[in-house]
Amino acid sequence: MAAADSGQARIEWADAQMPVLAQVRERLARERPLQGIRIAACLHVTAETANLMRALLAGGAQVGLCAANPLSTQDDVAVALSERHGANVRSRHGESAQDYAAHVAAMVQSEPQITIDDGADLIGAIHDTRPEWAAQMLGGTEETTAGLLRVRGLESQGKLACPVLAVNESRTERALNDRFGTGQSTVDGILRATNLLLAGRTVVVLGYGPTGRGVALRSHGAGASVIVCEVDPLRALEARMEGYEVMPALAACEHGDVFVTVTGGRDVLRAEHMRVMKDGAVLANAGHFDVEISLADLDELAEGRRREVLPLVEQFTLPSGNRVNLLAQGRVVNLAAGQGHPAAVMDISFAAQALCVEYLVAGAGELERRVLAVPAQIDSEVARLKLDSLGVQIDELTDAQREYRSAWGFAREPHGGGA
Amino acid sequence: MAAADSGQARIEWADAQMPVLAQVRERLARERPLQGIRIAACLHVTAETANLMRALLAGGAQVGLCAANPLSTQDDVAVALSERHGANVRSRHGESAQDYAAHVAAMVQSEPQITIDDGADLIGAIHDTRPEWAAQMLGGTEETTAGLLRVRGLESQGKLACPVLAVNESRTERALNDRFGTGQSTVDGILRATNLLLAGRTVVVLGYGPTGRGVALRSHGAGASVIVCEVDPLRALEARMEGYEVMPALAACEHGDVFVTVTGGRDVLRAEHMRVMKDGAVLANAGHFDVEISLADLDELAEGRRREVLPLVEQFTLPSGNRVNLLAQGRVVNLAAGQGHPAAVMDISFAAQALCVEYLVAGAGELERRVLAVPAQIDSEVARLKLDSLGVQIDELTDAQREYRSAWGFAREPHGGGA
Amino acid sequence: MAAADSGQARIEWADAQMPVLAQVRERLARERPLQGIRIAACLHVTAETANLMRALLAGGAQVGLCAANPLSTQDDVAVALSERHGANVRSRHGESAQDYAAHVAAMVQSEPQITIDDGADLIGAIHDTRPEWAAQMLGGTEETTAGLLRVRGLESQGKLACPVLAVNESRTERALNDRFGTGQSTVDGILRATNLLLAGRTVVVLGYGPTGRGVALRSHGAGASVIVCEVDPLRALEARMEGYEVMPALAACEHGDVFVTVTGGRDVLRAEHMRVMKDGAVLANAGHFDVEISLADLDELAEGRRREVLPLVEQFTLPSGNRVNLLAQGRVVNLAAGQGHPAAVMDISFAAQALCVEYLVAGAGELERRVLAVPAQIDSEVARLKLDSLGVQIDELTDAQREYRSAWGFAREPHGGGA
Amino acid sequence: MAAADSGQARIEWADAQMPVLAQVRERLARERPLQGIRIAACLHVTAETANLMRALLAGGAQVGLCAANPLSTQDDVAVALSERHGANVRSRHGESAQDYAAHVAAMVQSEPQITIDDGADLIGAIHDTRPEWAAQMLGGTEETTAGLLRVRGLESQGKLACPVLAVNESRTERALNDRFGTGQSTVDGILRATNLLLAGRTVVVLGYGPTGRGVALRSHGAGASVIVCEVDPLRALEARMEGYEVMPALAACEHGDVFVTVTGGRDVLRAEHMRVMKDGAVLANAGHFDVEISLADLDELAEGRRREVLPLVEQFTLPSGNRVNLLAQGRVVNLAAGQGHPAAVMDISFAAQALCVEYLVAGAGELERRVLAVPAQIDSEVARLKLDSLGVQIDELTDAQREYRSAWGFAREPHGGGA
Repeated sequence: MAAADSGQARIEWADAQMPVLAQVRERLARERPLQGIRIAACLHVTAETANLMRALLAGGAQVGLCAANPLSTQDDVAVALSERHGANVRSRHGESAQDYAAHVAAMVQSEPQITIDDGADLIGAIHDTRPEWAAQMLGGTEETTAGLLRVRGLESQGKLACPVLAVNESRTERALNDRFGTGQSTVDGILRATNLLLAGRTVVVLGYGPTGRGVALRSHGAGASVIVCEVDPLRALEARMEGYEVMPALAACEHGDVFVTVTGGRDVLRAEHMRVMKDGAVLANAGHFDVEISLADLDELAEGRRREVLPLVEQFTLPSGNRVNLLAQGRVVNLAAGQGHPAAVMDISFAAQALCVEYLVAGAGELERRVLAVPAQIDSEVARLKLDSLGVQIDELTDAQREYRSAWGFAREPHGGGA
Repeated sequence: MAAADSGQARIEWADAQMPVLAQVRERLARERPLQGIRIAACLHVTAETANLMRALLAGGAQVGLCAANPLSTQDDVAVALSERHGANVRSRHGESAQDYAAHVAAMVQSEPQITIDDGADLIGAIHDTRPEWAAQMLGGTEETTAGLLRVRGLESQGKLACPVLAVNESRTERALNDRFGTGQSTVDGILRATNLLLAGRTVVVLGYGPTGRGVALRSHGAGASVIVCEVDPLRALEARMEGYEVMPALAACEHGDVFVTVTGGRDVLRAEHMRVMKDGAVLANAGHFDVEISLADLDELAEGRRREVLPLVEQFTLPSGNRVNLLAQGRVVNLAAGQGHPAAVMDISFAAQALCVEYLVAGAGELERRVLAVPAQIDSEVARLKLDSLGVQIDELTDAQREYRSAWGFAREPHGGGA
Repeated sequence: MAAADSGQARIEWADAQMPVLAQVRERLARERPLQGIRIAACLHVTAETANLMRALLAGGAQVGLCAANPLSTQDDVAVALSERHGANVRSRHGESAQDYAAHVAAMVQSEPQITIDDGADLIGAIHDTRPEWAAQMLGGTEETTAGLLRVRGLESQGKLACPVLAVNESRTERALNDRFGTGQSTVDGILRATNLLLAGRTVVVLGYGPTGRGVALRSHGAGASVIVCEVDPLRALEARMEGYEVMPALAACEHGDVFVTVTGGRDVLRAEHMRVMKDGAVLANAGHFDVEISLADLDELAEGRRREVLPLVEQFTLPSGNRVNLLAQGRVVNLAAGQGHPAAVMDISFAAQALCVEYLVAGAGELERRVLAVPAQIDSEVARLKLDSLGVQIDELTDAQREYRSAWGFAREPHGGGA
Repeated sequence: MAAADSGQARIEWADAQMPVLAQVRERLARERPLQGIRIAACLHVTAETANLMRALLAGGAQVGLCAANPLSTQDDVAVALSERHGANVRSRHGESAQDYAAHVAAMVQSEPQITIDDGADLIGAIHDTRPEWAAQMLGGTEETTAGLLRVRGLESQGKLACPVLAVNESRTERALNDRFGTGQSTVDGILRATNLLLAGRTVVVLGYGPTGRGVALRSHGAGASVIVCEVDPLRALEARMEGYEVMPALAACEHGDVFVTVTGGRDVLRAEHMRVMKDGAVLANAGHFDVEISLADLDELAEGRRREVLPLVEQFTLPSGNRVNLLAQGRVVNLAAGQGHPAAVMDISFAAQALCVEYLVAGAGELERRVLAVPAQIDSEVARLKLDSLGVQIDELTDAQREYRSAWGFAREPHGGGA
């Protein structure tokens, strides 16, 4: 009961930070476009996710939820969502791999018409174990790059049996969530774990995709010098033009105080890198999987001299005597050491998710059975609702401007003056 | 002779700032892939352009050049390029509209196999007056959005007779030149014209495309508060998330000290806006055409009370007594009041241009007769050469990483941690 | 025992972040200049403070410690400092006012020769209850502006009986700790309490002293728009020139999402302000005392509609229905909701403190009985050791430069070019 | 006549940018407190200075003006100020050293009661040649650090015969003009001379006083990476904490693309530095005197291989083949290559100057004959007028707050939360 109260308070707090989703929920509650639809989600079980579930329930759906990552479950939220809102929640913080699998299986057994994934575990399981059910689904949505890779794997093998909307490739998602959400929460996670002063320190960001940009931006904003490491020449050049130092990882290791991997690849920091790091170096991963920092190399280098020095900090002592501090076992640091994306970020993602679910229902039987882009009108609608919620008003084109623009084709911006 | 000396000194100074193009030129000089090809260009006749011409000449081409804008011609450079390097230059600073047209016509008459445009005047003229020659061309390149709109107009009418490479839509161009080149040079042009102190002032940026972003970034970097006006909700939202105030233009007019239009549209600042501006407001345009600030409205409002107060500043006194200062007659301010893009920016554009010309020659007869994207390998090559020239080295993927990546499909970056 | 282990781990972690103090400790351990000196401190009982105590113990002193604020005590650290290092620690997290007073009294009873204060509670108590002992003291140090006001109050009444060094007025302290330490930790405290996304939000900073500057800087660095409110025209002007919006508090209340008071005054946010705030406004105090936000006004406005919505967030519902969220009961948010200053900041303060203690001992009987500035050589020594610890090397003047400079008097910098 | 017109237009343009001085002028015109006072000024003869002269003339003074630097004189302004406003102007752009001296001597001969200096040439000349007149002066004001050193030299030798107000040490001056004025105009001067793109480049700032901070801030704001070189540990530490790289000059020379000296010392860049610079390095000086870059070393290294490559750029080719580009012969670059301080900056300085002159007249016979600080009320008044002119309103303390503050002594800001 206390758990349900505390969980409900969290859900309400998050709700107050999620005005876009709230507006969508209110409309869904009026229109009930999801009446009777069976939806299963495999997401981080947090207060923000709870509000997505509430929106779907408000629209008339039957909703099940299991965890995309056992460590991110907020148990009190799970209780409140189940007891107070009527979702079928199967998740417990720190659950075993066996329990985790059982919970995903339970979601499969609910024979969902729509799935919502953060890593493709659920839609993958349906295709693996019940392909005939997959073929009857209205579709799925996927929140991560990693998950999309799995879904596209299915597609390229000709096995994808239903449409899947690539939510994390929507314009709002790329432009806002990776950069602002993960940027802030990664730095926040590092500070919570270590309470380091970033001013005067050097942060090395490995990988300069949207998320890496966010981490670099916020690290700089917190007073750190930033070094970027990249393998793509154009991205490396952008980082340099934006004012960061750019150099190979090995060179950066001599300068860095804090290292953040966010490449999407594996073994970005290896023994050769760790050997040249300064005493006290801090290693954090902001990529989806915990394979970017080679734990095997770190463990081998330290020859067993490792210990927990703070709740989320494990310290490895190298033969040189230098100490390397690993945060959250190399798991994604904004979730493992912080509270993940702020609700305001998830507001955008989850409002888009809710609109995508509505779109899948509305398009029943007419959408192609492949990975689909989020329709532009959903992006636009989300941005519009978000601006509203921020109290920001914008201009509209005059008729004369609209005419001028269409006379010219459909230019969005000028080339701002030449040579 | 003195002009040729001074022009040659400018060309050499620019050359020293254009190491990417210089590397391309050296290779073209060795390989001579353009041997005997007739090329005509309609570009701003500046020291940077001269270096592009030199690269093409070095590759074996016959090269003609007229001006894309009579006001941007550097006469001494024109002389040096003609006398010292052997290009056929037809341009004079401040030439009449009649002379301008005659110069373009002369370029048409040279029956070029390849055209290089900054606004599509030349390729347009060939299609208009000599469509049969257009059909025999290897192709053209276009440097501006405005020009591409014209070319795409031809394409949509089924009249485009040769392939055209959209240079300004290349990744390097969008990521770097609009943002960094026009951003810096627009603020620079405003300071040269006015010597205003930007710290403590408010700059209103109308339009938040790549160029508008650059103007906002550099204005902020110069100490100004920045207000962004947009019509696109997602762009408006990005501006707000990046920390700028966002509001309708009319509201912004009460706060702004300096206004920069960069929308690609027309009549962005009209009488209704001018009426509410503060005394001393400064108006500058950074869009390609001089139609973004309504000069008609300004003139009408001032009822003839206008005078030049500084070489590039015309002051209009409104009925309220408030004075509005128009820079460079509303022409693109980075060119009209400054020196346009820094050579280092043009280095990237023009190295890409030279590689595009080589690509058109190599692809003779095999390219489709439509607007084509710049091939990714040209972008990558330009970025690589530019990093080299900055002395920046980057990492390469290990074999294991490459394998991991391809096992996953071809992900470029991770989703950096979820809800 | 587990507490001592965990406390010791924290102390060691902090020690690794405090290389300046560690270098001072090592020298004190060799030279033992504090042999037998009785020192009592009234400070926040944290891992960083523990390292100051260790340095003094290493120098030969007998050391006692009570809490400057009952809420900042880390109990495990208190245990470890007592059991493992031999300090006399009297403090417990959340202790009653009665216990708090008893602990201060116990420190007085130890008849210290030197006091170290963070708010002047201890030196005040000695002067109040044992003025004869105060007159025999070698001196004290004070870490806060608020404490110095109390000490200067004693001085102006002719009651100050020993020298007191104004540590928080040292150049290193003003230039670094208030701005960087409190700046980062205040934003960190707000994020820990709320997990708000700052990008796209407006933070109102009330008070633009060194700490307010830090809060503004870091809020901006985290992506927020910043409005500054001030009563001093020159400070207000500086804020404006630095790019912030500046306006009266009442006007700012209509725009702000987060409010941070840091004026040193009282009732900065009152009923009139709260009434016009937006729904969801967050109020945090970063000033020393919890009087900057009027809790009385907030409580009265809400007419009892208040509840805890997150562990450190109390929500007040106003008659309009708008909800105002108060963090940490209006106590200093970087301590109450975060972990206070990062160790690296305290490193500088506490290294200065240790050197000040040594200075008081060395100057026994020769220092004036008033508030004294920290000697410049201590500032310089601290900066030098800190640069060393960051691996930063700097230049020295050449003989010719030294001569030129002294020929000119003792200029520190040029006027950089006039009108 | 044309010159007077163009000069008058400049003066009016500057006047519109100098609302603080304009308000002071209007009051002086009403009150005529300077009636009949003889004032001589040795300042940069620019449109901004002309407006200071106008304010003094409006107050009733007789005003003479010669140049503090022959290269900064705007001839048309000199003509207009003389013909249209009645000042006695003795200055011509590029005048010979002999003429320069004659002009200063003419000012001495006017037997001024008050002097206004930018480098102490005039007050120095009076003390040298007419000490008896100096003893009868009401006083002088001095605008530069370098000038103050000379005046303090007189003072320490017991020769200073009248009070001198240290205008450039006023709070407004240090906080605003050096940082914002010289910061912007130095970067502006460099861009005008070179049109370099700063994004992606590294700017090395040698000297981190107020001016150096401004140069670093604006260079960073223009997209450059910044390296700071310092000899003072605390300043070096501040630069590092503010996010800049800090290293010895010799090490910085390997990384830098642009070098700006602003130390107030001499021979900051010497042969040993130049030898390791990259090809194309740009050297600029922002300090008052042209001794910071060793021209002798540069010339010797180049063995005569030097030439002008752009109007303000001289290129030296070193034995290695590397080219080093010197701007404006090492003279203060914001004046020599740009237009010096923006009018808005001079507005603050010159409003303070005018108020200082009024203060000297009002205090006739009662001020000490030494270097005096600008009274705090002048600083406050200037800041207040400037905020007014920016349309910025601020709060006032409530009575309760005032009482609280005075109960506490006179604290200006809090210590923002401790350890």
